Amino acid sequence: MSAVADIGLIGLAVMGQNLILNMADKGFTVAAYNRTTSKVDHFLENEAKGKSIVGAHSIEELCSQLKTPRKIILLVKAGDAVDSFIDQLEPFLEKGDIIIDGGNSHFPDSVRRTAALEKKGLLFVGSGVSGGEEGARHGPSIMPGGAPDAWPHIKEIFQKTAAQVDGQPCCDWVGESGSGHYVKMVHNGIEYGDMQLITEAYDILKRGFGMSEGEIAAVFETWNKGVLDSYLIEITTEILKYNDDDGVPLVTKILDSASQKGTGKWTAVNALDLGMPVTLIGEAVFSRCLSSIKEERVRASKVLGGPQIEAFTGDKKQFIDDLEQALYASKIVSYAQGFMLMREAAKEYKWNLNYSGIALMWRGGCIIRSVFLGDITSAYTKNPNLENLLFDDFFNKAIHKAQPGWRRIIAQTALWGIPTPAFSTALSFFDGYRTERLPASLLQAQRDYFGAHTFRILPQFYSDKYAEGQDVHVNWTGRGGNVSASTYSA
Amino acid sequence: MSAVADIGLIGLAVMGQNLILNMADKGFTVAAYNRTTSKVDHFLENEAKGKSIVGAHSIEELCSQLKTPRKIILLVKAGDAVDSFIDQLEPFLEKGDIIIDGGNSHFPDSVRRTAALEKKGLLFVGSGVSGGEEGARHGPSIMPGGAPDAWPHIKEIFQKTAAQVDGQPCCDWVGESGSGHYVKMVHNGIEYGDMQLITEAYDILKRGFGMSEGEIAAVFETWNKGVLDSYLIEITTEILKYNDDDGVPLVTKILDSASQKGTGKWTAVNALDLGMPVTLIGEAVFSRCLSSIKEERVRASKVLGGPQIEAFTGDKKQFIDDLEQALYASKIVSYAQGFMLMREAAKEYKWNLNYSGIALMWRGGCIIRSVFLGDITSAYTKNPNLENLLFDDFFNKAIHKAQPGWRRIIAQTALWGIPTPAFSTALSFFDGYRTERLPASLLQAQRDYFGAHTFRILPQFYSDKYAEGQDVHVNWTGRGGNVSASTYSA
Repeated sequence: MSAVADIGLIGLAVMGQNLILNMADKGFTVAAYNRTTSKVDHFLENEAKGKSIVGAHSIEELCSQLKTPRKIILLVKAGDAVDSFIDQLEPFLEKGDIIIDGGNSHFPDSVRRTAALEKKGLLFVGSGVSGGEEGARHGPSIMPGGAPDAWPHIKEIFQKTAAQVDGQPCCDWVGESGSGHYVKMVHNGIEYGDMQLITEAYDILKRGFGMSEGEIAAVFETWNKGVLDSYLIEITTEILKYNDDDGVPLVTKILDSASQKGTGKWTAVNALDLGMPVTLIGEAVFSRCLSSIKEERVRASKVLGGPQIEAFTGDKKQFIDDLEQALYASKIVSYAQGFMLMREAAKEYKWNLNYSGIALMWRGGCIIRSVFLGDITSAYTKNPNLENLLFDDFFNKAIHKAQPGWRRIIAQTALWGIPTPAFSTALSFFDGYRTERLPASLLQAQRDYFGAHTFRILPQFYSDKYAEGQDVHVNWTGRGGNVSASTYSA
Repeated sequence: MSAVADIGLIGLAVMGQNLILNMADKGFTVAAYNRTTSKVDHFLENEAKGKSIVGAHSIEELCSQLKTPRKIILLVKAGDAVDSFIDQLEPFLEKGDIIIDGGNSHFPDSVRRTAALEKKGLLFVGSGVSGGEEGARHGPSIMPGGAPDAWPHIKEIFQKTAAQVDGQPCCDWVGESGSGHYVKMVHNGIEYGDMQLITEAYDILKRGFGMSEGEIAAVFETWNKGVLDSYLIEITTEILKYNDDDGVPLVTKILDSASQKGTGKWTAVNALDLGMPVTLIGEAVFSRCLSSIKEERVRASKVLGGPQIEAFTGDKKQFIDDLEQALYASKIVSYAQGFMLMREAAKEYKWNLNYSGIALMWRGGCIIRSVFLGDITSAYTKNPNLENLLFDDFFNKAIHKAQPGWRRIIAQTALWGIPTPAFSTALSFFDGYRTERLPASLLQAQRDYFGAHTFRILPQFYSDKYAEGQDVHVNWTGRGGNVSASTYSA
């Protein structure tokens, strides 16, 4: 067998098979390998039949089928399996060959692998792939990062294989090292946030107004024609309309205990590690945690009372419009926080991230795809150095317009006793972010009082007494002369 | 030198010296050692002179001075230094001797050390010590956990050395392995939360009402006579009253950028790891993060508008009472979350935690000491198996009474545009916790729609179609028969 294939793929589960078929449809010749080689034969004789797909029965054979520089995508279980296949590939590769991990790896693993292979002259790419089986078959969102020299060689294949929106591929180079899997992680965290916001809106319409699932579906259907137009709003509409055999909306029979696959948690932990206030994803993860202690909540509901929700006497249409604005504004905050996190990650991990490219990659093919992401793409295309999404004219105006309704929703739901952890944290973040002077001054004073942690002075008070950059400590109690005698540290 | 000392201590920084002096005052003979031995001599000739304190100039000498079983406290920098001293001690110890780490170690390190020393027949104790230098000298809060066999041998020394409240020592056995340092970590997380709540109240009074620091101090002074009576409210009063030389309240000159030592973050990360919704500490940590991007906030304040705060026309006295209740209720939620986390940690790490003992240890000697912690002690003393603090009659009634004011505060500050991340997340948690059916049912439907993640059915709908424990998947779109053909997974 001569070197005929443009790219090789290891791992013939449904995702892998579909990605191969997708690449073949786009005109590429693909070599397919699987550890259990009977899968290779079955695939060649069935789905792959008549297509530009060749099979390999060993790693060596796979590598011999590939044009150089060789390009091999791994679509195997994250973890040891990835390292194991890399080890098996190495003997059959040459300098400049490219290994791509398309699985759900945690980004520190991709950082490690990029560096380790670089030393051996091999190019490693960690690539987030979103869109599931269907996306893999017809056009996923692909987020590749790693060794920059790999990109020119895989660009055409990846961009043709990805989802296309308005003639643009939902795939671009993310950045160095583990940045591809990092951006996929943040994508998933944002997905957690989007889903949480939608459930809060549903809860408010259901409990606040006593609306039926059908009526709520109609509201979401309307929203899907406006600024909230997105895949998640679309499927929410379909879910709410879905009745069980007995005519009862199925969603009302589903256990309200949400599980999580961990990527949302990774995002929240990383935000804490980098010291960035990604509060909405944090609350979304914690909300799933709260949902999962269902039995304790049932017991709590019997002993912890709250307000009676009285019939709403205001303008119902206005309230529903307010709710749309609350969801929209909270979503703007969530994405602003997500991009703040990526900005900080780029600094911390020394990546050159392509922000407009990231927004474009999320524009189609993946779960959070939306019209909204087109607006984010525009913002970062117009100004690649945009400090914060909220500084962009479009979003600045949008959130300004949304504010009054958003605030009314928070006020009303607090009085009703309906939980809005994501809506609320978004508003608190927004109000904190636009605050020049926060009460953290008092917090710094407390820390100096009990722990002699010192504080700094506001620039307008620099003087002979308080120099710029000076760590100031005072004896707050005025008792005794020894500043440390009355200090505490936790 | 014969074995005369009841306990040895390594590390003669101020904390260590003060703890030695404290133990000597309580009638114990203490052996003191420091790597730089000139410090030993200086200490003996000065602060320790005339007291029941002996000095050692080597680890070997130190061990020879101790009655068996030997008890040695390390008060050195967390990390490698602790391991290094343990290694140096081992050759001079016998089976049953006790090493106590009194520093700020992260609990997984204490878990590891307890297990490693157990194999060698030595007893390791990781002990949180809170209260700073002053606490160490006159009575800290001490939280020891580790090898249970160590406790009978150190109990008397530790409990006599600790702070005393109402005749009870702020020290008790926490539990196995790393539980002592774990509980200290949660203590610090709760401290973050308490401080954040106080700063939010300050901000509301200042910006909402335009009150001066002096007027706000008077409010806190009143609060300190009621349910909020605590060290942190007390020092807040003193801070707000503290004027600079020019008569301006010093707090108004302090840079509003809060740093953090990391223990709050540890708590939030651990909460995410264990899947417990410790939202208030999470928001408190994120609030410090937001405060620290001061320059970006200043720029944001110029371009992001908000509502004008209009003069308050309601009952100001009532509003301030509401605020007190909001702070109180939020604090109840925060401690409830903290104890939920410890309950989960006990399960996860297989510890038998002593909850009333923990509350009692925090009752005095440390930063979060308060009358409130006396009420928590009572709750867990009355019912050691209390599932949640909110189920205790006292706190159930207290939060019920606090609710209306708490809700009014959230509603008003949302309309004003004053951020209340901790107050708000506490209310959302409370309303979510007491909700029998959360909208996570919709979230589960979404996950099944796009990723075929399956869901479960509420018990009241178990039937031939939906069995208990069954993972249900439906074809939401009704398009085609292949359930996986239209699925997406992020």
